[in-house]
Amino acid sequence: MNRELFAAGERLVSPAYVRQGCEARRSHEHLMRLLLEKGKCPEDGWDESTLELFLHELAIMDSNNFLGNCGVGEREGRVASALVARRHYRFIHGIGRSGDISAVQPKAAGSSLLNKITNSLVLDIIKLAGVPTVTSCFVVPMATGMSLTLCFLTLRHRRPKAKYIIWPRIDQKSCFKSMITAGFEPVVIENILEGDELRTDLKAVEAKVQELGPDHVLCVHSTTSCFAPRVPDRLEELAVICANYGIPHIVNNAYGVQSSKCMHLIQQGARVGRVDAFVQSLDKNFMVPVGGAIIAGFNDSFIQEISKMYPGRASASPSLDVLITLLSLGSNGYKKLLKERKEMFSYLSNQLKKLSEAYNERLLHTPHNPISLGNFFSFLKHYGKLVFLKRVTNSSLVVPLGSMQTVSGYTFRGFMSHTNNYPCAYLNAASAIGMKTQDVDLFIKRLDKCLKTVRKEQNKEIDNNDKTEDVDIEEMALKLDTVRLDTCQDSS
Amino acid sequence: MNRELFAAGERLVSPAYVRQGCEARRSHEHLMRLLLEKGKCPEDGWDESTLELFLHELAIMDSNNFLGNCGVGEREGRVASALVARRHYRFIHGIGRSGDISAVQPKAAGSSLLNKITNSLVLDIIKLAGVPTVTSCFVVPMATGMSLTLCFLTLRHRRPKAKYIIWPRIDQKSCFKSMITAGFEPVVIENILEGDELRTDLKAVEAKVQELGPDHVLCVHSTTSCFAPRVPDRLEELAVICANYGIPHIVNNAYGVQSSKCMHLIQQGARVGRVDAFVQSLDKNFMVPVGGAIIAGFNDSFIQEISKMYPGRASASPSLDVLITLLSLGSNGYKKLLKERKEMFSYLSNQLKKLSEAYNERLLHTPHNPISLGNFFSFLKHYGKLVFLKRVTNSSLVVPLGSMQTVSGYTFRGFMSHTNNYPCAYLNAASAIGMKTQDVDLFIKRLDKCLKTVRKEQNKEIDNNDKTEDVDIEEMALKLDTVRLDTCQDSS
Amino acid sequence: MNRELFAAGERLVSPAYVRQGCEARRSHEHLMRLLLEKGKCPEDGWDESTLELFLHELAIMDSNNFLGNCGVGEREGRVASALVARRHYRFIHGIGRSGDISAVQPKAAGSSLLNKITNSLVLDIIKLAGVPTVTSCFVVPMATGMSLTLCFLTLRHRRPKAKYIIWPRIDQKSCFKSMITAGFEPVVIENILEGDELRTDLKAVEAKVQELGPDHVLCVHSTTSCFAPRVPDRLEELAVICANYGIPHIVNNAYGVQSSKCMHLIQQGARVGRVDAFVQSLDKNFMVPVGGAIIAGFNDSFIQEISKMYPGRASASPSLDVLITLLSLGSNGYKKLLKERKEMFSYLSNQLKKLSEAYNERLLHTPHNPISLGNFFSFLKHYGKLVFLKRVTNSSLVVPLGSMQTVSGYTFRGFMSHTNNYPCAYLNAASAIGMKTQDVDLFIKRLDKCLKTVRKEQNKEIDNNDKTEDVDIEEMALKLDTVRLDTCQDSS
Amino acid sequence: MNRELFAAGERLVSPAYVRQGCEARRSHEHLMRLLLEKGKCPEDGWDESTLELFLHELAIMDSNNFLGNCGVGEREGRVASALVARRHYRFIHGIGRSGDISAVQPKAAGSSLLNKITNSLVLDIIKLAGVPTVTSCFVVPMATGMSLTLCFLTLRHRRPKAKYIIWPRIDQKSCFKSMITAGFEPVVIENILEGDELRTDLKAVEAKVQELGPDHVLCVHSTTSCFAPRVPDRLEELAVICANYGIPHIVNNAYGVQSSKCMHLIQQGARVGRVDAFVQSLDKNFMVPVGGAIIAGFNDSFIQEISKMYPGRASASPSLDVLITLLSLGSNGYKKLLKERKEMFSYLSNQLKKLSEAYNERLLHTPHNPISLGNFFSFLKHYGKLVFLKRVTNSSLVVPLGSMQTVSGYTFRGFMSHTNNYPCAYLNAASAIGMKTQDVDLFIKRLDKCLKTVRKEQNKEIDNNDKTEDVDIEEMALKLDTVRLDTCQDSS
Repeated sequence: MNRELFAAGERLVSPAYVRQGCEARRSHEHLMRLLLEKGKCPEDGWDESTLELFLHELAIMDSNNFLGNCGVGEREGRVASALVARRHYRFIHGIGRSGDISAVQPKAAGSSLLNKITNSLVLDIIKLAGVPTVTSCFVVPMATGMSLTLCFLTLRHRRPKAKYIIWPRIDQKSCFKSMITAGFEPVVIENILEGDELRTDLKAVEAKVQELGPDHVLCVHSTTSCFAPRVPDRLEELAVICANYGIPHIVNNAYGVQSSKCMHLIQQGARVGRVDAFVQSLDKNFMVPVGGAIIAGFNDSFIQEISKMYPGRASASPSLDVLITLLSLGSNGYKKLLKERKEMFSYLSNQLKKLSEAYNERLLHTPHNPISLGNFFSFLKHYGKLVFLKRVTNSSLVVPLGSMQTVSGYTFRGFMSHTNNYPCAYLNAASAIGMKTQDVDLFIKRLDKCLKTVRKEQNKEIDNNDKTEDVDIEEMALKLDTVRLDTCQDSS
Repeated sequence: MNRELFAAGERLVSPAYVRQGCEARRSHEHLMRLLLEKGKCPEDGWDESTLELFLHELAIMDSNNFLGNCGVGEREGRVASALVARRHYRFIHGIGRSGDISAVQPKAAGSSLLNKITNSLVLDIIKLAGVPTVTSCFVVPMATGMSLTLCFLTLRHRRPKAKYIIWPRIDQKSCFKSMITAGFEPVVIENILEGDELRTDLKAVEAKVQELGPDHVLCVHSTTSCFAPRVPDRLEELAVICANYGIPHIVNNAYGVQSSKCMHLIQQGARVGRVDAFVQSLDKNFMVPVGGAIIAGFNDSFIQEISKMYPGRASASPSLDVLITLLSLGSNGYKKLLKERKEMFSYLSNQLKKLSEAYNERLLHTPHNPISLGNFFSFLKHYGKLVFLKRVTNSSLVVPLGSMQTVSGYTFRGFMSHTNNYPCAYLNAASAIGMKTQDVDLFIKRLDKCLKTVRKEQNKEIDNNDKTEDVDIEEMALKLDTVRLDTCQDSS
Repeated sequence: MNRELFAAGERLVSPAYVRQGCEARRSHEHLMRLLLEKGKCPEDGWDESTLELFLHELAIMDSNNFLGNCGVGEREGRVASALVARRHYRFIHGIGRSGDISAVQPKAAGSSLLNKITNSLVLDIIKLAGVPTVTSCFVVPMATGMSLTLCFLTLRHRRPKAKYIIWPRIDQKSCFKSMITAGFEPVVIENILEGDELRTDLKAVEAKVQELGPDHVLCVHSTTSCFAPRVPDRLEELAVICANYGIPHIVNNAYGVQSSKCMHLIQQGARVGRVDAFVQSLDKNFMVPVGGAIIAGFNDSFIQEISKMYPGRASASPSLDVLITLLSLGSNGYKKLLKERKEMFSYLSNQLKKLSEAYNERLLHTPHNPISLGNFFSFLKHYGKLVFLKRVTNSSLVVPLGSMQTVSGYTFRGFMSHTNNYPCAYLNAASAIGMKTQDVDLFIKRLDKCLKTVRKEQNKEIDNNDKTEDVDIEEMALKLDTVRLDTCQDSS
Repeated sequence: MNRELFAAGERLVSPAYVRQGCEARRSHEHLMRLLLEKGKCPEDGWDESTLELFLHELAIMDSNNFLGNCGVGEREGRVASALVARRHYRFIHGIGRSGDISAVQPKAAGSSLLNKITNSLVLDIIKLAGVPTVTSCFVVPMATGMSLTLCFLTLRHRRPKAKYIIWPRIDQKSCFKSMITAGFEPVVIENILEGDELRTDLKAVEAKVQELGPDHVLCVHSTTSCFAPRVPDRLEELAVICANYGIPHIVNNAYGVQSSKCMHLIQQGARVGRVDAFVQSLDKNFMVPVGGAIIAGFNDSFIQEISKMYPGRASASPSLDVLITLLSLGSNGYKKLLKERKEMFSYLSNQLKKLSEAYNERLLHTPHNPISLGNFFSFLKHYGKLVFLKRVTNSSLVVPLGSMQTVSGYTFRGFMSHTNNYPCAYLNAASAIGMKTQDVDLFIKRLDKCLKTVRKEQNKEIDNNDKTEDVDIEEMALKLDTVRLDTCQDSS
């Protein structure tokens, strides 16, 4: 409402009350102005009222929401379903233009502002999360894998001779496929076992660079966040190698924003060596739906080059999600989530240690991994049991030994354990952002019940060796299903 | 957004685009200003975007939505559930104050504006619907019955000696109970049969006034909208009697706003005689959920007296519903609904006539009833069949003969037919606002199938007189259920 | 989804996953079944997903949501605006029938279930809040005042000779008007000053009963929750007097559900004497929007009589709000709110005491009032300052001396202080449900700033007696506005 | 609700009513079952109630919505903001897995079903829109350009020697960039002028294939929907060339689904020659927000290969939008939109013709373009006027002569006119899906006002040649702005 409107209102209800309402509006506007002017995440989260007012204000700046709009173009932001319009807060035009995903759209000033502000807020958050010298970033409505592909495709134009990407092994399909999709040949560097941890083989990396010739290497593609017992790559050293040989360095920081350690590695890498871009998932770090990523870096022109490489407009949906989320949380809210995650990591770690000891097993010692934990369970060698453990804990994190897997024509031995021959099978658990004490407690409880059942079966098996494993499986399935249902009901 | 905000936006995206957005905002504001200044229903309906922006603007004027609000009163508009806050657009304070349901609330300028504007819009609509000289009205969050009670309670203070309410009979419980609840004794005036129609017995009314003495009569309580074969009361003549004897006149216009004939009767009554207040349902006339009514009249001070009689605050929900509805429709949209209803009445009438003729039955001739129709079906004398007819048509509108009913201690013979001895049983159908051609067609289709089945049974019965009615009922139930399910599936 | 649907789903995605989804559905259904079977508030609140699924399931049971519905009645639950349908979760038929607001509607099984369950849940909560022997209650979509009126109107039919309602004075307009509206003459019993507290004058009540004659007294209308220094009425003793003289007893328990003390008084009254009905606000006790109340009692047939007195259908909106709220909170959540309120009361009390002492003023000693506090401030005698204090604290709770007010023809001396001559002016503050520490802190901070300013002015005045008060006011207004804006900005 | 729940309900309200509600539920379930079993777009659109129930049912099958879920993975579908969860109907897991964007997710049976059903519905619609022999398709959450890139990247693995993409020129940046981004060299084939139309130079295409050698050609990249005076490519002949030389053929069918002519071309191409995949925009064809595309084809394994090329999960948002839209519309609703679009094309064409004649200008004769029209205006040679024409019509569709543009290092002469030297400047207007009569009328009205103004200026110029163009521009800007504001207000 503007002054005229308030004046009209004063004729209907007491001017004093209207003035109070007018003042109230100004305090919402004050928050919006700060945001637009500073482009920083507000310290305190906005309430829903301010947030929705802001989105509404932006949306009516888009041409599809103009009163008396008449469109004769081929794309006018018309929407057939009111449900769809509503769920997008009437932002229909997406973001970007054919020239650049970060570009401003003439028909959509509101969507364009939304995009600019989101990128600005996200940059602010990356800084406070541990990479203060980051200079540029943008949200892209593709998940981490495809975003890495876009980085590689951009580099192709800079390095026409390059055919290889050097990649310290991490057993996660998307990031492997991101290189294949971009048309490059991944050069897998096996990890080194140090204690329980799997760490980057720096010598092998450097040797490979020399062997292939730096010009034929598109980039080094390293990883921070990963499942234990693998730990974040030795980013500083890799960054130095990249700098020395003039090779770009792309970091897969998938769920690393939530860990100050991962972020610090990137910051250090950029300080002492070369980090060209680092890519992080929106959903894994900001608790939004799957489908977006942030591509960030220390060199404006390179990041802009990537953003210009995206051909055409794109969905505004991931940007909108992260904007809503960050404005709701405020930087204080986000910092609180980071702090709680760290505490949950300790808590989960302690609870797993206790449980392990109770079964005479042990927690793998992986101090360099700030997010994920691995638990050694000797009986995990029986594959059948793994299946059930997986079902009971609703987790996909039971890592057997010696599993073979072929991805895009490449065969990995010991797949999921990040190495050909990890000494033991184990179970993974991560402390991800948003996890609560009750999650840990319930998980531990279910795991305990499940282990008890498995132990009991094991003892029987010793007595009764002629039973086939297959029969076992069916029986145990029933038993474990009961366990699962029991624990489900406990919790509901 | 104000100028400062737009200026801040211009730093992020092209000033030209922002200016366009700013202009767009002004066109929304223009509509809001017109509404606030003129207090009339806009001709063209608003789109959802303008509507929600307007509600949002009003809501942030309420103190519960102030940023930095700190409440230490006993009622501060706090809401426990976000779902609840959202569905009320964050209007929490209700309407009115302890002194007056139409009063302005200091803590809730927005809710107060909402209330004022709604009442103003509704007044505008009543005028265009056929009562141009109405001067005052307000929405009350109670349905028609309780609203009539409030009118009677208000009159009590003006007429301390009065004990009776003169009431031309209409067989609808709420309006009868509205008098009982208010503590008065209804004096039932039986209707006169004229052709097929049941009409007001004016002589009996006047005789009763003389018999009881005008001072002992609180008011005449007449009715416009009703089910055929009753027709609207002779309002002009009743209004003249009221004027002559100095007796107030309260009109139950429950679903009469949708009919220009009902509205015209009220207008004429007020012109030639006395109409103190007329009460209409929100849901039946404006297609909103049940729960609100409009109390309107020609004398500001009396209507205000009623509004001051309501003790305390009240729900804003019905006001909000009708505001949203009228702003969405615009006066043109509402007029279109009125026009379509009239057309549907003709269509329904014709279809029923055709169907009646096909079964050698006839449509009751009730030209004074503009909304409801009665169909004579000779076989309706069998009660068992009625039950099924009712189920098949999903209607509560089958009126048998000679049913007795006691309401609050009063016994009515021939209940539901508005008279002690209507010559025939019949089936009612109404053309209410919002009805579509396919509603009529589907109803006629189901009725036809049902009649066919009943006829068939009837023929069998003639052959087979030893069968008891009870057996009949069960069998027919199954047959008719099949009919119902068949027709349901046709339509889905 | 039923089994067939899940089976169809299994053809599209893995049966194992679908089965898991099917199990998940069953756990939601389990909660719903418990609710329907036991009719009690679940201990743990439901998540939004279960809650909305439940509402959706109920809504599709209403005929307006039937696929292939064809309506030819005068009221078919059609809705013109999609926004309106949505905000009511497509419950359009309201609650009740013409015969009874608690009755089941044939066209609306879902709405009827909603109504039944809500009343059942609310009964459960009243029990746990401190009135375990309550037997019957219903939610009525009218605020406390009108609900009291309905109780009085019901009693009229039982006590045809009665003209008076005995009412220990409480200075709140709605409850006074509730008697006037019902057509009775309030007999005001002045309170007795005991220490700082204002308490019921039991002797005066009994004397008045004898003077008027029990048959001429409709009921005693007592009050629990009220602003200090008035305290809850001596309910036990009043209940005994009522029992002795055979006079009904209606308790205005407006915001008393939140206080175990108020509830205990009612429970005790019913145990030792007579309590016919007690009425409480929905918004003040359950943090929902204004507009509903609960009428409860210990005698099913009387409560049902009241429910049958309501003429016609009514809005389902308040029932829906409280249902959503209670299911979201669970009984544990509601108990937590009650506990926090009690703690906030102590906190507020302590902070006010500290502040008072800093200004050499004192907190009124009102140990019987569990919700509201009064603070004595000697300078409050200057009316001009009151105005500003009010504006600064956004409160309506500054009580001056000797204000006269006429309500419905009755004149009250010392209005708002519940007595003709309270010894001092004071400021009220309440600890209502949902209040947070930051509310108290912000209030104290603003009050402090304001008091400082007022003190400074006072000192100046002493030096400068020729200045008129009017000039003073304008100047102070500016100063205090600055204070207010400052503190507003602190908090945003 | 299942049987148990309904049984519980029967204890609260009449069993007959509950049974009716139960039946009602079954009719909703019936629709869902049909959908799941047949995988086809329902003929009649679903109402919101069925639609939201269905989405809700799917959502609770996802693990993030399990009651008692405890997640210890790195991605558990937790959502920080309730607004975000709500707007995605609580589908948080996105679609696909690391291996395949069409794969089923173990943690998200509901999202997986959603994805499968959407793809199935979309396939059904493509068939009815004119490509009945299509066998496979999937929705990808990237706009058309990036989706084309994905096709090219997939082909790279099949054709390791290929470096070139043969591309009949169309002046739209995204599709050009899609080839650059994929790392290929576009070989631009200039169009031939036939009458007013610009058509594919088939001889040049074949010559180029021979010149480069088929093995070095990744594919032919043709276009259907485009702005007049360019017309859809000669798809049949191109498909035959591709078949003859064993070259893949990718069709950019950006907004072609809405035109039966474009669809027919694809169908014919596939029948007589080779079409490997055709890509269409979701927003331009289905009236949903920007951000999704459909990749479709006639060979399951190739389409699956593309879907497996996408590395990782992806946003479910575009799939959800198109699912909601198609279920709301039904196939009948979509067909109606297609029919109306065709009628609007004729209407727009006639109106433009009339207007042209009034100004002695002419409409370009482009009978092969079923969507877009070009209007010749002789005065368009003055660039200054173009700018204003653009502003007035809010269109980006004024095509000047001789504009040069460099895209990704390639320079285009006469950019936007699809040829180096189109004989005249012109203005474009398209009849896109969802356009209404009032859009056309308003556009024609604004254009008319604008042309009048321009003409007047032109006449003045002839008299007054010494005025500079620059001065002209400023003056005309003011004049035309007035025109725009006037026409804006007309329409509001």
